[in-house]
Amino acid sequence: MKDSSDVQAIVAEIRDAVRKSVAPPYASETIPLALHEPCLQGNENAYVKECIDTGWVSSVGKFVDRFEQELADYTGMKRAVAVSNGTAALHIALLLAGVEAGDEVLVPALTFVATANAVSYLGASPHFVDSEDVSLGMDAETLDRYLSSTVMLRDGHAFNKSTGRRISVLLPMHTFGHPVDLDALTAVAEKYHLTLVEDAAESIGSFYKGRHTGNFGRIAALSFNGNKTITTGGGGALLTNDEDLGRHAKHLTTQAKVPHAWEFVHDAIGYNYRMPNINAALGCAQLEELDGFLRAQRALADRYERAFSPIQGIRFVKEPPYTRSNYWLQAICLEGADLEMRDAVISGLHAANIFVRPAWRLLYKLPMFENAPRMDCAVAERIEASLINLPSSVRLGERVETRDADEP
Amino acid sequence: MKDSSDVQAIVAEIRDAVRKSVAPPYASETIPLALHEPCLQGNENAYVKECIDTGWVSSVGKFVDRFEQELADYTGMKRAVAVSNGTAALHIALLLAGVEAGDEVLVPALTFVATANAVSYLGASPHFVDSEDVSLGMDAETLDRYLSSTVMLRDGHAFNKSTGRRISVLLPMHTFGHPVDLDALTAVAEKYHLTLVEDAAESIGSFYKGRHTGNFGRIAALSFNGNKTITTGGGGALLTNDEDLGRHAKHLTTQAKVPHAWEFVHDAIGYNYRMPNINAALGCAQLEELDGFLRAQRALADRYERAFSPIQGIRFVKEPPYTRSNYWLQAICLEGADLEMRDAVISGLHAANIFVRPAWRLLYKLPMFENAPRMDCAVAERIEASLINLPSSVRLGERVETRDADEP
Repeated sequence: MKDSSDVQAIVAEIRDAVRKSVAPPYASETIPLALHEPCLQGNENAYVKECIDTGWVSSVGKFVDRFEQELADYTGMKRAVAVSNGTAALHIALLLAGVEAGDEVLVPALTFVATANAVSYLGASPHFVDSEDVSLGMDAETLDRYLSSTVMLRDGHAFNKSTGRRISVLLPMHTFGHPVDLDALTAVAEKYHLTLVEDAAESIGSFYKGRHTGNFGRIAALSFNGNKTITTGGGGALLTNDEDLGRHAKHLTTQAKVPHAWEFVHDAIGYNYRMPNINAALGCAQLEELDGFLRAQRALADRYERAFSPIQGIRFVKEPPYTRSNYWLQAICLEGADLEMRDAVISGLHAANIFVRPAWRLLYKLPMFENAPRMDCAVAERIEASLINLPSSVRLGERVETRDADEP
Repeated sequence: MKDSSDVQAIVAEIRDAVRKSVAPPYASETIPLALHEPCLQGNENAYVKECIDTGWVSSVGKFVDRFEQELADYTGMKRAVAVSNGTAALHIALLLAGVEAGDEVLVPALTFVATANAVSYLGASPHFVDSEDVSLGMDAETLDRYLSSTVMLRDGHAFNKSTGRRISVLLPMHTFGHPVDLDALTAVAEKYHLTLVEDAAESIGSFYKGRHTGNFGRIAALSFNGNKTITTGGGGALLTNDEDLGRHAKHLTTQAKVPHAWEFVHDAIGYNYRMPNINAALGCAQLEELDGFLRAQRALADRYERAFSPIQGIRFVKEPPYTRSNYWLQAICLEGADLEMRDAVISGLHAANIFVRPAWRLLYKLPMFENAPRMDCAVAERIEASLINLPSSVRLGERVETRDADEP
């Protein structure tokens, strides 16, 4: 822990770099900068009004169909199924990937709690994996080394030698929109007979080697929560390139009802995970704006990067090579920080009207997961202690068009 | 099975009775009558627009707080927690009522599949109960007789003598809005040490002996799906008179996040069952209309009752004594019908532009529940074969005000 004058100096440097980077209307120190606010300035009102005026607000309707088709088109995938939120999408993705009660699922230690909760819903246990510094997500190299000593292969499945349980799925998450190294993780999944499922909750608009995230595993989960790049109020989607799996996903998320003109027949234990039409209407309007949002987020990242580059001891988190990130949440790392210093800097920035946040507490530190299996997570520990997310609302990046025009 | 000319005669009688009962604009045979369409003609657009214009569309917001408070006030209960749908509400209600994996939960054979699915989500098994003819819901008398021979009491719990499993919860459902006999079922629950939970998904606006349904068990579940008395697009709520339980319900449905200015700490496996603010905005507008909706539904029930009373062999389903029903779905029973005849009548009515439906297929006839324990369900079988739900949209009842004024 540095002393308090050091902390004050760091806070001042970050404050100045942030105010210098945001769009001019937000440069004043008196304006509070939220972490991530939705931008609802397109056809949101018109589409939602159409739902209300026509009475189509609920779980079927043209905006649900359209949103699903447009998501599939945008991501270049065969099928998208809109659901009630990202957690629901993860739950069904894991169910369809074959996770069974008693299994273990490899999830990052550094992720939002929903990733591990979805594993628990199936009676399986998360098994936590360390991060690497570039993408902040799973480190394929150390994971491979860890699995080579931890896992026994038998009958085409991987078993944890300590617990005896099957490890069925590898579930990387694209942290703050930055794609993990999918080629390297795909190789690990193949080597250990794991099904790859992508937690793409944060990565709509993020591409790995030119293909949208979600295309690399068996099935993927998106989120459209209010703080995400685009929002449906609450919502999520499943993405897959397997049409049978897509049909099955639609069936299970709509209470496994068998189509019939009037009979209520259901052929499996299903889930009420449908996205209402009124929420899909928001989603359709937001998708129309997505390209502009991504331009704004990337322009803000550019300016943050330039503003922070002269500052000693602070690293701006850039998209990994071979990727194009949505920069959903902008982030910096304070070199050599500990949790106490991180919190002191966050407090100082809040006092300066800049509402930053830390990464999530590592999941194995939460009481319900403290006994879950895990590898050594030294890198994730370091990221947890040093990372601060900066204000990332679309409007903060929006001066991109004018600036580009002004510049020589 | 009657012959086809009999079926045609029955179809004609029902068709004429329905057209005679609905509000005048819908009396023409050329107008299709849906089963239940939402009525969104109050402040829905204004409130939803406010959410979009202010950016508060997601999982917190003033409409969520207001909707919860107004639901509590309306039902006369201490706490309401808005959630993503009725199934989610049932899931958490059962979890909070103490259902554990391996338990059995007493549910009606005649109900929507979500009642039993929610039991399955907890690793418990539904145990199906027969209906009685008046409320269409659980029959306390035959249930008591059945349990007296089926159950063994030990250490303050009931155990199924055949399966050895604990029976922890009694979960009646208020079918189509008609309250079950709650006093009698409460007595059964007490006698066998069962926790009473009310599936009130269909019964907002329905009262038993002057108190709103939901007040009688430990916790209750409401639904605001698009076909319900009031809708939030998709949505539901938990109701309880135990403030601690209400706080716990809010915590578990909001991912068990511990309040903190910036830290992401969660102290249990939680669920993302939050109702978005934009859906709660719809709910607030709909609640303002609820009294009018109930007047319209009851007026329609009145007219249906009068229209069907002269018709031999058809019984209009009236609210049970001591109750005030919301008449969510109007229903008739065809005396002596079998499933084949019921379906022939439904087909005939569809051809006449009247979109009726049967009750649900009894749940133990669905593949995933066919091996679940159950009592003899002769009454439910009879109801299944004979019941037809009639068009029940609010607008069909709306002539009540003018008619009252016109009548002497």
